[in-house]
Amino acid sequence: MIDLRQYIRTIPDFPKPGILFRDITPLVAQPRAFRYVIDCFREHFQDRNVTAVAAAEARGFIFAAPLALELEAAFIPVRKPGKLPFRTEKFEYELEYGTDVLEMHSDALKPGDRVLMVDDLLATGGTTAACLNLAERAGARIVGCAFVIELTNLRGRDRLKGYDVLSLVQYSDGE
Amino acid sequence: MIDLRQYIRTIPDFPKPGILFRDITPLVAQPRAFRYVIDCFREHFQDRNVTAVAAAEARGFIFAAPLALELEAAFIPVRKPGKLPFRTEKFEYELEYGTDVLEMHSDALKPGDRVLMVDDLLATGGTTAACLNLAERAGARIVGCAFVIELTNLRGRDRLKGYDVLSLVQYSDGE
Repeated sequence: MIDLRQYIRTIPDFPKPGILFRDITPLVAQPRAFRYVIDCFREHFQDRNVTAVAAAEARGFIFAAPLALELEAAFIPVRKPGKLPFRTEKFEYELEYGTDVLEMHSDALKPGDRVLMVDDLLATGGTTAACLNLAERAGARIVGCAFVIELTNLRGRDRLKGYDVLSLVQYSDGE
Repeated sequence: MIDLRQYIRTIPDFPKPGILFRDITPLVAQPRAFRYVIDCFREHFQDRNVTAVAAAEARGFIFAAPLALELEAAFIPVRKPGKLPFRTEKFEYELEYGTDVLEMHSDALKPGDRVLMVDDLLATGGTTAACLNLAERAGARIVGCAFVIELTNLRGRDRLKGYDVLSLVQYSDGE
């Protein structure tokens, strides 16, 4: 058992004033800690017949790619507009100010696929909800969502109600 | 032995007319093929005391993160400006039209580190050369560079002269 908190660096006022940014780069620079994260994710989901591990760029890729290999599942990238070269499905979603768009290849998932969504951080859950929407529109079933960090005060878990949500480290506001 | 070519999709005229884009998303969607890539990289570099595996976002992360875990080395992200939250070193480099900038955390590498640079594709080598510059300025030594695909006609290998460059699939122009 490893206390992951010691490998997460808190940076005040990034990317804007008042935000405490939780930086996972020290964690992935420590092979034992990085390995522990992947092991925790695998142990939780290994008996759930996951066929695909999906993640939004870019930090999500860091955890989703090794996990896909461990689970012998497909790795499915979800990206910003214009990055994926083949036919895509798009999902537009609301941010605090304005909107954002995510894309997934149209042939990335099919009915019968069982998808695990992975990201470094659960904040409001907006990005993850967009990814889940893309996966479900493709006919896939969602096995669950795995996060390294959960910012509990932002209540992203409420937005992901009905899904199996795993997070390894929780912060409430201002820690 | 797996013929990786069958998992690489060629998409004409992406991102602009005249470009044949080599799409690795079918490859990472096949766990056996994805595993084979990581195994090839690991076998080539496993006796070289790699302490850090670095990659530029975002596709580079997909291969570098699992490889870092396999080699029990640090994973070091290199990112577009404004994405890394801590103090960074910057490197500006020339593109066909204009310039681009990449950043690495100032504390990511230190003298004595032995770095393996990873990306999905070696084209002109500009991005990789920028990453190598950042690593060497931090005092690290470069063990080598690993690519899934090499576009031989763009002669990126010439730009990386003096480094151990491994690529698994080579395309010359117009295949």
